[in-house]
Amino acid sequence: MHSADRARRHFSSDNWSGVHPEVLAALAAVNTGHVPSYGHDTYTAATIARLRDVFGDRAEIFLVFSGTGANVLGLQTLAMPFNTVICAETAHIYTSECGAPEKHVGCKLSPVPTRDGKIDPDGIAKHLHDFGNDHHVQPSAVSISQATEYGTVYSPDEIRVISAFAREHGLKVHMDGARLANAAAHLGVSLREISGDAGVDVLTFGGTKNGMIAGEAVVFFDAELARNFAYRRMQGMQLSSKMRFIAAQFDALLDNDLWLKSAAHSNRMAGILADGLRSIDGIQLTQKVQANEVFAILPREHIAALQEHAAFQVWTESISEARFVASFDTTEQDVRSFVESARATITGV
Amino acid sequence: MHSADRARRHFSSDNWSGVHPEVLAALAAVNTGHVPSYGHDTYTAATIARLRDVFGDRAEIFLVFSGTGANVLGLQTLAMPFNTVICAETAHIYTSECGAPEKHVGCKLSPVPTRDGKIDPDGIAKHLHDFGNDHHVQPSAVSISQATEYGTVYSPDEIRVISAFAREHGLKVHMDGARLANAAAHLGVSLREISGDAGVDVLTFGGTKNGMIAGEAVVFFDAELARNFAYRRMQGMQLSSKMRFIAAQFDALLDNDLWLKSAAHSNRMAGILADGLRSIDGIQLTQKVQANEVFAILPREHIAALQEHAAFQVWTESISEARFVASFDTTEQDVRSFVESARATITGV
Amino acid sequence: MHSADRARRHFSSDNWSGVHPEVLAALAAVNTGHVPSYGHDTYTAATIARLRDVFGDRAEIFLVFSGTGANVLGLQTLAMPFNTVICAETAHIYTSECGAPEKHVGCKLSPVPTRDGKIDPDGIAKHLHDFGNDHHVQPSAVSISQATEYGTVYSPDEIRVISAFAREHGLKVHMDGARLANAAAHLGVSLREISGDAGVDVLTFGGTKNGMIAGEAVVFFDAELARNFAYRRMQGMQLSSKMRFIAAQFDALLDNDLWLKSAAHSNRMAGILADGLRSIDGIQLTQKVQANEVFAILPREHIAALQEHAAFQVWTESISEARFVASFDTTEQDVRSFVESARATITGV
Amino acid sequence: MHSADRARRHFSSDNWSGVHPEVLAALAAVNTGHVPSYGHDTYTAATIARLRDVFGDRAEIFLVFSGTGANVLGLQTLAMPFNTVICAETAHIYTSECGAPEKHVGCKLSPVPTRDGKIDPDGIAKHLHDFGNDHHVQPSAVSISQATEYGTVYSPDEIRVISAFAREHGLKVHMDGARLANAAAHLGVSLREISGDAGVDVLTFGGTKNGMIAGEAVVFFDAELARNFAYRRMQGMQLSSKMRFIAAQFDALLDNDLWLKSAAHSNRMAGILADGLRSIDGIQLTQKVQANEVFAILPREHIAALQEHAAFQVWTESISEARFVASFDTTEQDVRSFVESARATITGV
Repeated sequence: MHSADRARRHFSSDNWSGVHPEVLAALAAVNTGHVPSYGHDTYTAATIARLRDVFGDRAEIFLVFSGTGANVLGLQTLAMPFNTVICAETAHIYTSECGAPEKHVGCKLSPVPTRDGKIDPDGIAKHLHDFGNDHHVQPSAVSISQATEYGTVYSPDEIRVISAFAREHGLKVHMDGARLANAAAHLGVSLREISGDAGVDVLTFGGTKNGMIAGEAVVFFDAELARNFAYRRMQGMQLSSKMRFIAAQFDALLDNDLWLKSAAHSNRMAGILADGLRSIDGIQLTQKVQANEVFAILPREHIAALQEHAAFQVWTESISEARFVASFDTTEQDVRSFVESARATITGV
Repeated sequence: MHSADRARRHFSSDNWSGVHPEVLAALAAVNTGHVPSYGHDTYTAATIARLRDVFGDRAEIFLVFSGTGANVLGLQTLAMPFNTVICAETAHIYTSECGAPEKHVGCKLSPVPTRDGKIDPDGIAKHLHDFGNDHHVQPSAVSISQATEYGTVYSPDEIRVISAFAREHGLKVHMDGARLANAAAHLGVSLREISGDAGVDVLTFGGTKNGMIAGEAVVFFDAELARNFAYRRMQGMQLSSKMRFIAAQFDALLDNDLWLKSAAHSNRMAGILADGLRSIDGIQLTQKVQANEVFAILPREHIAALQEHAAFQVWTESISEARFVASFDTTEQDVRSFVESARATITGV
Repeated sequence: MHSADRARRHFSSDNWSGVHPEVLAALAAVNTGHVPSYGHDTYTAATIARLRDVFGDRAEIFLVFSGTGANVLGLQTLAMPFNTVICAETAHIYTSECGAPEKHVGCKLSPVPTRDGKIDPDGIAKHLHDFGNDHHVQPSAVSISQATEYGTVYSPDEIRVISAFAREHGLKVHMDGARLANAAAHLGVSLREISGDAGVDVLTFGGTKNGMIAGEAVVFFDAELARNFAYRRMQGMQLSSKMRFIAAQFDALLDNDLWLKSAAHSNRMAGILADGLRSIDGIQLTQKVQANEVFAILPREHIAALQEHAAFQVWTESISEARFVASFDTTEQDVRSFVESARATITGV
Repeated sequence: MHSADRARRHFSSDNWSGVHPEVLAALAAVNTGHVPSYGHDTYTAATIARLRDVFGDRAEIFLVFSGTGANVLGLQTLAMPFNTVICAETAHIYTSECGAPEKHVGCKLSPVPTRDGKIDPDGIAKHLHDFGNDHHVQPSAVSISQATEYGTVYSPDEIRVISAFAREHGLKVHMDGARLANAAAHLGVSLREISGDAGVDVLTFGGTKNGMIAGEAVVFFDAELARNFAYRRMQGMQLSSKMRFIAAQFDALLDNDLWLKSAAHSNRMAGILADGLRSIDGIQLTQKVQANEVFAILPREHIAALQEHAAFQVWTESISEARFVASFDTTEQDVRSFVESARATITGV
């Protein structure tokens, strides 16, 4: 795929997509002269104010470069090295950040088995033991992904149950919301209803996968946790000197609910893709399709041919399970064309 | 200054400036569809190839988000936690990265006193003792800044002398080249002559301060040091998922030597500013003006008034020393207007 | 138990036992005047030479304070922060060191499910994927415990198979030998046959659990790995200033094979205990008894009463499984008295 | 010296000395059977209670293996990675712990120049700037050594002045009291008067240099700081499984004020040595002799010969300055014999 025609679209990842044109336009709009660096400018202040309108007046919000940066620095505020963070065994922080949480927080992560990327109090409870035993890492936080790495979505109630359970046991709640917009679009709720209002203490609010170049927000619903975050962000190599250009990208997302339109669109494309694939004999979907991802078992012998049509990832080699991700710019034509090609390839019809 | 009119330009920092229009244009040019993420795309490959033309075929080059990220991850390849990195006491890594090297490398930094931001073998040698003594951190690298934090520039010979001395004592050489372009422009040499060719092992090649939004390159002249850098970059939270947009910015800098034109321009603006300030009774320059920075002692009582005209940083409060930085977009009119205003304010003429 | 009569013996842990009288005598013997500190004395040199007789001329050997210290510092030589160390989910390094490996090495540990504390190539292989993928931690080492935390023992062949498999995949092998003496005594082989000769690269050779006050040896069979270990040990807070007193303890263990006699004795006591418990209706052993530990399911309602007789740990609360550990000073009378008491309590006979 | 007759005594370090016979006797006295491990035994509880009699009822006290361990783990409670700890440039934590504070705390240390090992508010104040600036490490603690690494001693007033100044600026106070006993003996005050009562928050109370095998106490005068210390100690590899044997050593030191007798004795020996050396033409003392150390410039050409008589360290090679340390077991005869030998060697008389 590396030599792929650059104008095509694929199903490999929402990271493969480019940038929404309105995001690019927003960059130009703030390119106006000199303003204070490192976020002390009025553009950034205005964006933070808008994000506070979204997440609540008492939220403390910081912009950073990347999702891993947001997750790791957020977790730093919830765990000391002798703590552990409980998360799904499929969590991005556990599987796909090259050990960044362990290195930067210095703590262990405790994985909870899951079939669909979601965890619940029963799974969390398995790690709730040996409190006060100095040989054992002490649980201090739960981290959940919304939407999950399997494209599934926690309902507001499910999050509230986890948060209440966590609180009861003295744990804080972190949410990796790299695809929070997709979850909100699926549920038809506000971003806040499935984060701060549902008991989340620290949120990674993703922008990159939803049409930005690079930029995420760390949102603290508990302001005390944010107290030293400015130092953590700088020391954590996540402080952009020309911050206004991250702020502007979020501005574009907030204008006219572009974040929601893009997320709803990619969800819809995933739905169409799911329906199409499901209708093909020999393909079996493995997860509910709630956000912008489709997981499906494909006939192993046809995978290479299908990837010629559009790139996608083989997720679980052993069972020939593939992952398809729709993006803000995926078109219905992209989807239908792929489905027809798959049908022809697999069924010979 | 935070409420400053956003269309004006100042002398606070080359981080206060915006983005070169050609950089913005380059972003749009690569926004063409889906391409592999995390740098596995052909845009990034092409940019790396062009950077190799600049730094040599054997250079291993990685793009990252920020200067601190580039410095810290570069230093990680040169020092274990029981080592020490010898640097100027004025080095950005020592004074201005909120302890990031100590946290991420885990090692000590050993500062060398300096009057002008430059160090030499005599200063380095003061830290070369107790080799083999397990109570003492073991020197493993020297880090120099080119141009320095005081706007001074090492000659190629000075760098070669440091590199040879370092090598003789088993040390590697790191260069913080956040303003390498300004140094090359001042010296009239290529970027390579004052980095790899002069004995530097790992270089931070800065883009942000020279008109990019955000992006730096870590350049390894010793490929062995780069062996695991892909993992370090990801774990170090410096891997951009949509890498093509950092690559494109470097592309813009390389096209028609924009990097050099911008750097030469800002150097020239600093020179004009220096000449102007020098000509004012009551102002005394404190450093040679070689790159794009001017350091000057100002009458303390006039500083606030001067900052009304254009923002600049008070660098050394105790002696009323200020720092002025010119950017790619600083105009001769900006400079002359400030000088005249300063003259009027200070001398009443 | 905290107020237990201090002259009694229990089955809680070989850490509950005191010190072998010959170890105390050895301390007095080296308390002779001033000698160089930090291990530069002739006592330490002589002990290291004797340990080399045991582990081979090419072994590099360092004395440290504690088992966790030995494990963590040994692992530091086998893993960078972006690596992962594969180990049993029951490994002491994974469950009982309060996250010390994660904090000090900075890396992830990847747990392998196990029923008896042992792992094999099939279990290890589950973590051998995504080599070269910069999002995934890179496996660099396997760590096994000999004897395991369940008192089971790897045969020399089993270790060789693991080592060969590890080597084939570019991994090094670490052994937590806190109870290596017990394993050797059980197998009737030398310490070396189940460590260096079986392909282990770095070994923690335990002294504390076998009758010493505090002291472990880190043994490198691959001298290159030991290159910077002196610095790691000091920086790792594991360098004893009055090293001769750790050396002397090992000397006592080596004299007349005290290490072997003590280990064989505690193994034998565990065997007698196992036979006794096995003979009681209502008690079910859950692991093979090969070293000095016995795991058994006890009637839950009798546990408190049994602990009155002699302390032991409840290992798995959910199934009422207890752990019994014999020490160098456990007597046959201790064991028989406990068994009879247990029989009477449980069966009423 | 490595092959020196082991029965002799030297002036190299109080680490070269052996163990006080009463300390060895105390080990035997607690070697009585099985007791709970990891400090949950009644021996340890009793020792902690006795140490509380010394340092105050509200002190939280933890026993660890080593001085570096005590310092580093104590500092962990006073600094986050984005903080800095201000200390003398001669401090053991800055010069002689192989970068352990930087690695384990993750923070920078900010050195204060000093001629005699002592610092004062003026020196500390130099590092008190850029509070709230996220590019700069934030000062959070001052660390002082009592007695200093130059054998000088802070008066209670001097410590109070530093503590008050620190408190005023939001900093906590750490004391490296590896030789606190010597300082107290010199001043004729209690250990508490120059630690908790003088405003120290966290103290390393040294045992090893005063006749123990290995053992230090971390004393928290601010109990809140101790809240998670049990985890830090275990994760920090400083938790002794057979803790009673560290406790017993402190017990021996507390019995009949052995700590004070030993410290006063070694101070007196240093005083006699100082008087003797001072009386020799060609020798010049460079520091006040207040604790158990003497610093003196010796004729360079005679150093090797003097070291034949008794070992000592060359401290500052460039000025031929040597350090002499007296121990609990140094005899007046040792001192007088060395002085006479030195006089004969140097003056030929």
